[in-house]
Amino acid sequence: MMAQTDVTDLARRVAGGDRRALARAITLVESRRADHRARAEHLLGALPKRDAPALRIGLSGTPGVGKSTFIERFGLMLTGQGLRVAVLAVDPSSARSGGSILGDKTRMEQLSRDPDAYIRPSPSQTELGGVARRTREVATLCEAAGFDVILIETVGVGQSETLVAGMTDLFVLLIAPAGGDELQGVKRGIMEIADLVLVNKADGDLKPAALRTLADYAGALRLLRHRPEDPEGFPMALPVSAVTGDGVDRAWDLIQTLAAARRSSGHLARRRADQARAWFEDEVRRGLLARLSDDASLRARMRQLGDAVADGQRQPGEAAADLLRATGLPS
Amino acid sequence: MMAQTDVTDLARRVAGGDRRALARAITLVESRRADHRARAEHLLGALPKRDAPALRIGLSGTPGVGKSTFIERFGLMLTGQGLRVAVLAVDPSSARSGGSILGDKTRMEQLSRDPDAYIRPSPSQTELGGVARRTREVATLCEAAGFDVILIETVGVGQSETLVAGMTDLFVLLIAPAGGDELQGVKRGIMEIADLVLVNKADGDLKPAALRTLADYAGALRLLRHRPEDPEGFPMALPVSAVTGDGVDRAWDLIQTLAAARRSSGHLARRRADQARAWFEDEVRRGLLARLSDDASLRARMRQLGDAVADGQRQPGEAAADLLRATGLPS
Repeated sequence: MMAQTDVTDLARRVAGGDRRALARAITLVESRRADHRARAEHLLGALPKRDAPALRIGLSGTPGVGKSTFIERFGLMLTGQGLRVAVLAVDPSSARSGGSILGDKTRMEQLSRDPDAYIRPSPSQTELGGVARRTREVATLCEAAGFDVILIETVGVGQSETLVAGMTDLFVLLIAPAGGDELQGVKRGIMEIADLVLVNKADGDLKPAALRTLADYAGALRLLRHRPEDPEGFPMALPVSAVTGDGVDRAWDLIQTLAAARRSSGHLARRRADQARAWFEDEVRRGLLARLSDDASLRARMRQLGDAVADGQRQPGEAAADLLRATGLPS
Repeated sequence: MMAQTDVTDLARRVAGGDRRALARAITLVESRRADHRARAEHLLGALPKRDAPALRIGLSGTPGVGKSTFIERFGLMLTGQGLRVAVLAVDPSSARSGGSILGDKTRMEQLSRDPDAYIRPSPSQTELGGVARRTREVATLCEAAGFDVILIETVGVGQSETLVAGMTDLFVLLIAPAGGDELQGVKRGIMEIADLVLVNKADGDLKPAALRTLADYAGALRLLRHRPEDPEGFPMALPVSAVTGDGVDRAWDLIQTLAAARRSSGHLARRRADQARAWFEDEVRRGLLARLSDDASLRARMRQLGDAVADGQRQPGEAAADLLRATGLPS
C-alpha cells in the first residue's frame, strides 16, 4: 500500500506538524502486519531529530482517583500557555480485552476538541509488552510532530508503571485521599519510581482527608531515595484538585523545575540513552523468538516438544534446553 | 554444593512430605546461580507424579480488601478439615524492591503456626516474569510434597493476575464494598479471568454497602462469558466476612463444585496441558536471550549496537534486525 518514498514523505509531513499524517503514521506503527512493521521501522528511522526534545511525563493513578479530570485540567492549562500536548495511554486491560471500555476521548471531552491537544487511546495488543512497545513508538512520532509535552498515562500497581517509567523523563503518581493502608503494602514499588505524588480531591468535604493522606505520603517519601542530582525536596507530595484546578499550576511549576534540573545535570540525556538501549534489547528479545517460529523445522521441533510437555512426559525447563540446542546458537 | 544423587534424594524426600527438604528444594529453585539452576531443573524432573493433583487456586485482591485475614480464615478452615494447604505469593512489588514490606507470616499469624499449612512469601527477582516463573516451580514442589490445596495470591490490576491465572485451576477475586466505579474501567480484564468474586467485609456497618457491591458485580458477571463446561451460575459473586467467617465455607463449597465439574469435563486436564506448554515456550524465550549474551562476539556486537542506539545514531528496531542477522538464526 505504501512504497518507501511514500514513507519518507510521510515522515516529512509528520515532522511538519500535519495532523492527518501523524494519525496515518500512528496507524502504521500500531499495525501488526509484517509488511507494515517493515515500513514502520523505515518511518521511525526517517524522522528528523528535534533540537529541543519534548518533555515526556508518566502519570499513574488507579481508577476513581480522578485521573481523566486531572489530565483534562492539566492539558487545558498547558494549551492555554501555548504549548502543544499529546496524551497517550498504556492500559494493561487493553492487552486482554482489546481496548478499554471507556473511550479516552469521551473521558476528556474539552481537551479532545482542543486543536493543540492530541489524545490517543491505548493500542490494543495481545500482551502488555506489545502495548508498551507501540506506545513508545507513538511517543517518538508525537515528539517528531512537535508536541511540547507528551503525557503517558497508565493505571494500577505493577508492571505497567515500570514500562511507562521506562519511556518518560519523570513520573507523577496521582492518588485519592484514603487510609494509610496502601502505603504499607504494594505501593512501595511505585513510590520508588514517583518523582511527584499528587493527592487529588483536596477540595470540599475531602480536603481534611486529603491533607492527612498528603502528610502520610510526604513522610513516606522522606524515607525513600532522593536522587543526588534532583533539586532539594524531590520526590515531593502536593495537594491538588482537578475539579477546582487548585494546585495544578503548582504541579506544573514543580515538573518544570525538576525537568530543568535533570536537563542541566545531564540526567535526562543519560536516562534517554539508557531507555533507548533497553528498547533495543527488548526488540532483540522479541526478534529472536519470531525467527524461531518463522523457521519450519524449528517450529516443528518446538511443537513436538511442547506436546510432550503438555502430556507431562517432559519438564518445561529441560525441554526448552533441548530446543535451544537445536537452534545452533552458541551455548 | 549438591551432587546429582543428592538432588534425586532431595526429590524423594520432598515427595515423602519432609518439610525441611521442601524448604531446601524451594531455596534451590529460587536461586539465581547458574549451577543451582541446572540442579533445580534436575530436581523438578526427578519429582514423582501424583495420582490426584492438588487444587490450585488463584486469589487476587488489592491492598485493604482484607486478603490476609481471608486467607488465614480460609486456610484454617481447610486444615480443620484435615487438608494440607500451601500459600504462595506473586507480588509485583517484589520484582522491584526485592520483597514486600510486610512479611507474609506476620500477616497470617495463626495459619503460619499450623503444621498442615505452609506459607511462602513472593520470591524476589529483578522482574515480574522471573517472580512468576519461580512461583510456578514452587507450586510444582508443593504439589509433589502432597499439599491438597495450593493458594497463589497476588495483588492489583494487570499483569500479575494474568500470570497467576496461568498457573492455577480457578481464580478467585476478593473485593471490598465500594462504589461501582471500578467496574466500569480497568477491572474488566480481571473480571474476565475471575470464576468467583467474593465481596468481603459483609458484616456490621459495611453489610449494606457489601450487598450493593455484590449486586453490581453479580450484574456485571451476568454480562460476561459463561464457560459452557462450567456449572450453571458461574462466574458467581458471593458475600463473605473474613472477620466473622460468614460465607467462607460457602465459598469453599462453590470452589469444590466448580473444580469437580472442570475435572469431570476434562477442562482441568486441558488447562494444565496448555499451561505447561506456555511455560515451556516461556523458558525457550528466556533461554534464547541468555545464549545470545553468553556468546562473546554476539555480546560485543550487541554492546556496540546498543551504544549506537543510546547515542541516537541508530533506531532500536533496525539495530535489533542487524544483530538478529548476526546470530545466524534462519530469517
